[in-house]
Amino acid sequence: MAQPATLNLPEDRYFDPEPAQKKIALELYRQTANLPLICPHGHVDPRVFADPDYSFGSPADLFIIPDHYVFRMLYSQGIRLEQLGVPAKDGTPVETDHRRIWQIFADHYYLFRGTPTGMWLNDELAAVFGIKHKLTSETAQAIYDEIEEKLAQPAFRPRALYERFNIETLTTTDPATSTLEHHQAIRDSGWKGRILPTFRPDAVVHIDTPGWIDHIDRLSEVSGIDAGDYAGYIRALEQRRQAFKRMGATATDHGPTSPQTLHLSQNEAQAIFARARRGEATPEDAARFTAHMLTEMARMSAEDGLVMQLHPGALRNHNESLYARFGPDMGADIPLATEYTRNLQTLLNLFGNNPDFTLILFTVDETTFSRELAPLAGHYPAIKLGPPWWFFDSWNGMTRYRQAVSETASLYNTAGFNDDTRAYVSIPARHDLARRVDANWLANLVVRSVIDMEDAVEMAHAAAYDLAKKAYKLD
Amino acid sequence: MAQPATLNLPEDRYFDPEPAQKKIALELYRQTANLPLICPHGHVDPRVFADPDYSFGSPADLFIIPDHYVFRMLYSQGIRLEQLGVPAKDGTPVETDHRRIWQIFADHYYLFRGTPTGMWLNDELAAVFGIKHKLTSETAQAIYDEIEEKLAQPAFRPRALYERFNIETLTTTDPATSTLEHHQAIRDSGWKGRILPTFRPDAVVHIDTPGWIDHIDRLSEVSGIDAGDYAGYIRALEQRRQAFKRMGATATDHGPTSPQTLHLSQNEAQAIFARARRGEATPEDAARFTAHMLTEMARMSAEDGLVMQLHPGALRNHNESLYARFGPDMGADIPLATEYTRNLQTLLNLFGNNPDFTLILFTVDETTFSRELAPLAGHYPAIKLGPPWWFFDSWNGMTRYRQAVSETASLYNTAGFNDDTRAYVSIPARHDLARRVDANWLANLVVRSVIDMEDAVEMAHAAAYDLAKKAYKLD
Amino acid sequence: MAQPATLNLPEDRYFDPEPAQKKIALELYRQTANLPLICPHGHVDPRVFADPDYSFGSPADLFIIPDHYVFRMLYSQGIRLEQLGVPAKDGTPVETDHRRIWQIFADHYYLFRGTPTGMWLNDELAAVFGIKHKLTSETAQAIYDEIEEKLAQPAFRPRALYERFNIETLTTTDPATSTLEHHQAIRDSGWKGRILPTFRPDAVVHIDTPGWIDHIDRLSEVSGIDAGDYAGYIRALEQRRQAFKRMGATATDHGPTSPQTLHLSQNEAQAIFARARRGEATPEDAARFTAHMLTEMARMSAEDGLVMQLHPGALRNHNESLYARFGPDMGADIPLATEYTRNLQTLLNLFGNNPDFTLILFTVDETTFSRELAPLAGHYPAIKLGPPWWFFDSWNGMTRYRQAVSETASLYNTAGFNDDTRAYVSIPARHDLARRVDANWLANLVVRSVIDMEDAVEMAHAAAYDLAKKAYKLD
Repeated sequence: MAQPATLNLPEDRYFDPEPAQKKIALELYRQTANLPLICPHGHVDPRVFADPDYSFGSPADLFIIPDHYVFRMLYSQGIRLEQLGVPAKDGTPVETDHRRIWQIFADHYYLFRGTPTGMWLNDELAAVFGIKHKLTSETAQAIYDEIEEKLAQPAFRPRALYERFNIETLTTTDPATSTLEHHQAIRDSGWKGRILPTFRPDAVVHIDTPGWIDHIDRLSEVSGIDAGDYAGYIRALEQRRQAFKRMGATATDHGPTSPQTLHLSQNEAQAIFARARRGEATPEDAARFTAHMLTEMARMSAEDGLVMQLHPGALRNHNESLYARFGPDMGADIPLATEYTRNLQTLLNLFGNNPDFTLILFTVDETTFSRELAPLAGHYPAIKLGPPWWFFDSWNGMTRYRQAVSETASLYNTAGFNDDTRAYVSIPARHDLARRVDANWLANLVVRSVIDMEDAVEMAHAAAYDLAKKAYKLD
Repeated sequence: MAQPATLNLPEDRYFDPEPAQKKIALELYRQTANLPLICPHGHVDPRVFADPDYSFGSPADLFIIPDHYVFRMLYSQGIRLEQLGVPAKDGTPVETDHRRIWQIFADHYYLFRGTPTGMWLNDELAAVFGIKHKLTSETAQAIYDEIEEKLAQPAFRPRALYERFNIETLTTTDPATSTLEHHQAIRDSGWKGRILPTFRPDAVVHIDTPGWIDHIDRLSEVSGIDAGDYAGYIRALEQRRQAFKRMGATATDHGPTSPQTLHLSQNEAQAIFARARRGEATPEDAARFTAHMLTEMARMSAEDGLVMQLHPGALRNHNESLYARFGPDMGADIPLATEYTRNLQTLLNLFGNNPDFTLILFTVDETTFSRELAPLAGHYPAIKLGPPWWFFDSWNGMTRYRQAVSETASLYNTAGFNDDTRAYVSIPARHDLARRVDANWLANLVVRSVIDMEDAVEMAHAAAYDLAKKAYKLD
Repeated sequence: MAQPATLNLPEDRYFDPEPAQKKIALELYRQTANLPLICPHGHVDPRVFADPDYSFGSPADLFIIPDHYVFRMLYSQGIRLEQLGVPAKDGTPVETDHRRIWQIFADHYYLFRGTPTGMWLNDELAAVFGIKHKLTSETAQAIYDEIEEKLAQPAFRPRALYERFNIETLTTTDPATSTLEHHQAIRDSGWKGRILPTFRPDAVVHIDTPGWIDHIDRLSEVSGIDAGDYAGYIRALEQRRQAFKRMGATATDHGPTSPQTLHLSQNEAQAIFARARRGEATPEDAARFTAHMLTEMARMSAEDGLVMQLHPGALRNHNESLYARFGPDMGADIPLATEYTRNLQTLLNLFGNNPDFTLILFTVDETTFSRELAPLAGHYPAIKLGPPWWFFDSWNGMTRYRQAVSETASLYNTAGFNDDTRAYVSIPARHDLARRVDANWLANLVVRSVIDMEDAVEMAHAAAYDLAKKAYKLD
């Protein structure tokens, strides 16, 4: 067998090749490469930190089975989820030999060439696990051995990696009905990692959520307030926000299909809520209620200071038979064209000028960046733009974002980077890629004399650290 | 105190850094840098030229208070318009100490890093006012002194700057009801500057304009034709177009929210007009009448030869409370997704093949450039594409425009550059930036052997000068 | 007269200029430049190959009169189609002096600077006809002489060029009612060129097609199945697909205005069909029936294995008076904003997970690439993305496509290149341009250490050859 190919990750990787610019990019990157990580929006399970001895399992458990970024691509090429060990709800047996799963992954690793997933994975393999060779059909099992051996070590427990990754703050995403017991356990353990919850009320706000009535009962239970009518429901939500704040939360998170905002009369809101409790709400009721509740959540944010995050526009579970068999988050959420200018007007006219309110906007429709989002953020004091979301969290996606947004909104109306991931071990790679994008973007402005090096250093620092901390009130 | 940082504007600034390409870019730029400025679309007040002793006031009067490009950005970061001296309609007292306004501006000048406003301002400060240092909190007052001293000199009167800026033609934008008395005064003064009006009938065409009935009365008055019924209204508009033509106008300008075009029956048009006169028109009436009047304006243009400009898609005065307190043009106009293919079909089927008709199209939805506008301009003889408008009048915006439009429409179906500004002193900086974009774009085509240098020189000249002059019939 | 300027086409043309990257691009390009051409989607008339002595006529017959890419641009600048010899349906006399037509073309050849048409034409002139000088007003007649002389030679017959162009497979596009007699003639002739039909049923599926009733009668006739009711119609279509398959077809092609898909009840489909047969179908009937038939065609593809191509979103014949006088394909088809996520859901939920089904998606709305098409292709096993279509088959269009699609969908969920042309002699130039785009794109990834050279070579080969062959089942 030929010598396996080297996994080559030079320090100046990804930067544009023109030597004068590349030299500046590297210089700027070195200014931010070792800054602590601010992770203000993500999906790591808090129990990962609550249990000091938590283990990630096998290499397949870590890299493949829970990561829809990875398995959607394999699925697109005809590999069934069962072959990858993804658990089926209907009891279909799935592959349990993790080495076989890993081999399929390695056999198809070429699919990730030039993709952000591929760039993150290579970085994780090299930087976190010390892998020296490219993952291929031939190297698959040897690399599995190496990772498996590392994962057995105490240095690869989540808390140890938190230190090694130099994370300063990491937030989770928690339903409004969560009792936050894992967060409490982290606090009680005396461990100094800063893990904070985020208030995500989608399941109780979208009245068309499967099981919504049960969610409301649960809301009553955890809040101690009867949420069975609209007034109680609002009070219960306010109670939960306070509970989240007490556990350190600084933000809320909202993922409706549409960013429509409305301000319904108390009567209409009550009537829709009552219909929903009786299981009689129409799709139009659901849309109007969601739009109204976005405005209500903005009101609460203006009052309690929690930063409001809004990321609409993903049509969830597009593949219905896959959803029926495997549930949500199977790589089948597909973006929709999204309209912000008219849809946000009601909310912004009520709270957009309010100095106590912050609204961080995300999109999976990148056409809105230059057309709607940057003009809105370049005007309304409440608005900051979140980093490029999901499919756009990539080299080209982030580069296009900087070019589409910065001229109109200014870097300083953006909210820095966030990794938005459930793949904990990928966090440093994701931040590193973002810092490289920004170093490269700013180096181009410097070499073209648009800004000078002094400005660029400040901007790089802001993009990598300051802006996220400030926008999310994490001081 | 440390030596203040230099404001550094090298001759080869902004060009891409690859040395072979940059050399060609500089060579091309030098071919156009000193060509006279054709300014066929803008918003400078004609009284600036009517009064030979017109003074711009203080540095804050010149750079901040009237310029929504500047103050929207400061507003987005929580600075109130009152702090910037922007006059409020409701009598709220506003800052009158212009040095204090200037200091706030300087303290936040970092917001403009990498923005077109920042690039124009730096160029104006250096090239027009001879400023040598970056504007910062520390240098603010000294730079104020320098500008104030310059503004007191006769060389900084508008007419003197017109010569210095090497402007060949500058058009203003004037309501249909204007008597053009300032233009008449300019002519009467014997000054040789070529300042021409542009016919902008929005206020009399959009029947939902506040005060529309008064505007129609005013139209009757200035035209000497009773515009109280639809037939008279049409004749009055034709009369005003003739009056504008006599004062040198070569173009009209139309800014509806939507580019929808319709051709209503005479009966329907009359009926809507009559309802509007009685204050009974519906929003749908207003939309249909605007759409119809675009077609009517195209008919008139085909007859009288005035070039028709259409720039739809901005939702004006998005921030209602700000509008109530400060009026329009407060930096709160937000773009909308815009559809041209179906919307323009009625107008184009009537006049798009007419050799006497020119329609210059603008957009604030850049997705339409490659999808709709370039294919339309690459087919219909009447259509030329205006330069990237508003938020897209920027390095990246213009570069993306060239890349999105040129392959399908050809450079030769574009209408050259226009500065579209009320900030008179920024005009040379805006044209310079556009000429640099084009030199850079063409140099890339040359170095890649897509075109040769001979072609590139002709194209650079066309983009900087010939195309605007020809499209707007300014020979 | 000065020496005419050289037509300069260096081997390393079009690549980005940075020397390290350019060197890699050239190396990658050399790996694919001489691979055989796979042409799985195009519009060359099969009779070109059925007649071994077919001649292209004059230079104007070859380059101008049949090519709407060329004459639309001249038309946009006020040249009438009659001046270009384009035949009018209404009997208007048109120019018959082909040297005069050629002179007009040469006089306006500057319009094509920087356009893909210009790049293809230059390549054709140099590589196919050995022209040494730029086409200008001055060189027009001499170049005409040279081309005319070449076209008279046997080496410039279509079959000879097929060998010279190194075409491996070329497919035509044929109506469902075609008897494929020219394909039969090619087979019968014993010539070894691989010319295959593609099943394009638009005229019998879109019930609002002019003459639809006649097309259905013709369908009955060629299929031998009475297509007068819905059940027979479906059987007749299935019969035609089998007939196409027997003649070597591997794919179908569908060009509705909208990509909407529906699954109507048998009753509704029958009822609409019956109304259409009586000439009583409404526009809504037509839209619903087209949407339903897309789903039906997917069902048939899942059964018979023909690859389904879908390219919606062009509003055909936008210029109605031109259409009335000259017919379709006059350069007046204009793209529409297109929605895929919701529109394709019905079809994909039925067949998107089916391993026997392939759906190749095209668009003329490039905003959908990153927002909808790449996410869909990065999930559904059935979907592959076609190359950038029509106006986007250009240097910038293809480059933007790679950047918008590859990170989310992977190169390996694309269907390679196709030339989509009726301009047979332009085929090598079109493939060459695409191969250069990909070499340039991949060289950028290599020089930035995103991928290594080994990966890049495989990816270049896939993009130039393997992916098209595999997606279209042309093994």
